[in-house]
Amino acid sequence: MTDIAVVGAGSWGTTFAKILVDAGGDVTLWARRSEVAREIRETSRNSDYLRGINLPSSLTATTDLEEAVASAHTVYLAVPSQTLRENLEAITPLIAPDTRLVSLMKGVESGTGLRMSQVIHDVTALPLERIAVISGPNLALEIAKEQPTAAVASSVDADTAAAVAKQATTAYFRMFVNYDVVGTEFGGVLKNLIAVAVGIADGVGYGENTKASIITRGLAEISAFAAAFGAEPHTMSGLAGLGDLIATCESPLSRNNTAGRLLGQGYALDDVVRRMNQTAEGLQAVTPVLELASSRGVSMPIVMQVQQVLHGELDPAELAPHLATDSDEPQGE
Amino acid sequence: MTDIAVVGAGSWGTTFAKILVDAGGDVTLWARRSEVAREIRETSRNSDYLRGINLPSSLTATTDLEEAVASAHTVYLAVPSQTLRENLEAITPLIAPDTRLVSLMKGVESGTGLRMSQVIHDVTALPLERIAVISGPNLALEIAKEQPTAAVASSVDADTAAAVAKQATTAYFRMFVNYDVVGTEFGGVLKNLIAVAVGIADGVGYGENTKASIITRGLAEISAFAAAFGAEPHTMSGLAGLGDLIATCESPLSRNNTAGRLLGQGYALDDVVRRMNQTAEGLQAVTPVLELASSRGVSMPIVMQVQQVLHGELDPAELAPHLATDSDEPQGE
Repeated sequence: MTDIAVVGAGSWGTTFAKILVDAGGDVTLWARRSEVAREIRETSRNSDYLRGINLPSSLTATTDLEEAVASAHTVYLAVPSQTLRENLEAITPLIAPDTRLVSLMKGVESGTGLRMSQVIHDVTALPLERIAVISGPNLALEIAKEQPTAAVASSVDADTAAAVAKQATTAYFRMFVNYDVVGTEFGGVLKNLIAVAVGIADGVGYGENTKASIITRGLAEISAFAAAFGAEPHTMSGLAGLGDLIATCESPLSRNNTAGRLLGQGYALDDVVRRMNQTAEGLQAVTPVLELASSRGVSMPIVMQVQQVLHGELDPAELAPHLATDSDEPQGE
Repeated sequence: MTDIAVVGAGSWGTTFAKILVDAGGDVTLWARRSEVAREIRETSRNSDYLRGINLPSSLTATTDLEEAVASAHTVYLAVPSQTLRENLEAITPLIAPDTRLVSLMKGVESGTGLRMSQVIHDVTALPLERIAVISGPNLALEIAKEQPTAAVASSVDADTAAAVAKQATTAYFRMFVNYDVVGTEFGGVLKNLIAVAVGIADGVGYGENTKASIITRGLAEISAFAAAFGAEPHTMSGLAGLGDLIATCESPLSRNNTAGRLLGQGYALDDVVRRMNQTAEGLQAVTPVLELASSRGVSMPIVMQVQQVLHGELDPAELAPHLATDSDEPQGE
């Protein structure tokens, strides 16, 4: 019996469970693999995902989904985005109708193009007022080391956003709230695409000017996309947009950044995918995002050039979208 | 006899002279020291400031100010900001009344608090329509290596801005134009203060989340400052604001970043100043900027905390302005 459940014991789910315990919560972490749950229960470690981090001793873990979620008033979801739907199908019959569900994920469902909160609403039929999302500049390992950072809790319902923010606030993790779920979620998806572009420039050997220019023009591009889907521009210039974008683009540990770097060094897409053990979500999101952009008439020159590099149609050294001359573009910025 | 003069043969002045030549200009570079002028003339090198860079052979250099500026239709200024006034007093009698003057500098005059374009107007009495400023994510050495980047040419006069942009556009250097001189200049000054804060966090040992959060909240803070002085918010989210901010904060070569890092490692301000051979403009700007902010009622929590660290009143490990709880601050971002 527990108040709060975290579903998914990867690096982010485990780190977030630690935050919730440190903030005073009674937390159970659900892991898919029994050896991970056992290690967390018995040694307060998750050495596969958070090497060297001591987890709080009061954090418990289980592979029994009912045990984790049945009594929880809030369930945090941190599973791979393409498995969310099937996980929710298992969770839905186990939870009370007034449970809050919170997405810690950054992705769009393949095929449907739905954001994670939309998938939650779709499967569980919970009202949007019971659903929240969390995003921000949140490299898990740094937070697990208690380096100070901040994030955003977003819900259409002010009470839900405030309750989630309060549950997850610690001395090293500050939560802000907003009510722009669309912008908060798209920020987390779109920044991966710009991180691939920055990685490509890095792989070619370009320096900080080029990378800063791509981030700056990239922010304008993803802000235009998000606004076309109803997001507030303000969200994209905050922690869940710009903050997350910078942290991802500057982290050598970022998978999207790494994938871009390999492309910039001249590896073909097939080689990049083979060399990386983990999924680079940004690579998967390029085509769906360009389709969505096209449906609303949004121009995304950086993402377009990333696609051309992926398809071997553009030399990575030519990826300089911030320099592109476009006759439609005013000479302003 | 020459069309374009660049006054100041440091790393940025020399790099900009190269850009202007590569863009097709007939350019003379004025150097204070005769050995620098001679090396540029005779070997197309400036080894003190741009080690390993081959300059265009058609770039000439002189220590004779009249020779450099008398026939120039445009004079670019790249001297240390605190020497601009005395340099202009020497230049003014030598130039025609329809000469264009362009500031490549990022600073505020001590004592008067004037921006560089204001000092130009004050000393030369040239109309503002003949004055422009250039700013952006422009680490000189990267541009000298012809890594692609972009910058902004700003003037209250559209023809002047366009003419300057055209003069300085090359395959590796793209110029945008805007008409917000206040925002463009303040961007270049204020980013140094945030770079000091990021350097402090780096010196303490914090990672990318913390740095990204400081940059994000710092952008909001310097945007509020600039807006209070009449700048357009749009400018601060562009290349001359955000772009320059990111490049400076992420470059280990930045003097302001380095100064912050030493403070973060626990050195006192006196030690930092002694250990650095060059001036870190951000350190000098803290007090004047806070005075200006106070005069317009602008809150600058990050810059305030930097001042407290400089004065030994705040442990660098406590500098986490993005986590600060301020009762006046809404729980949004």
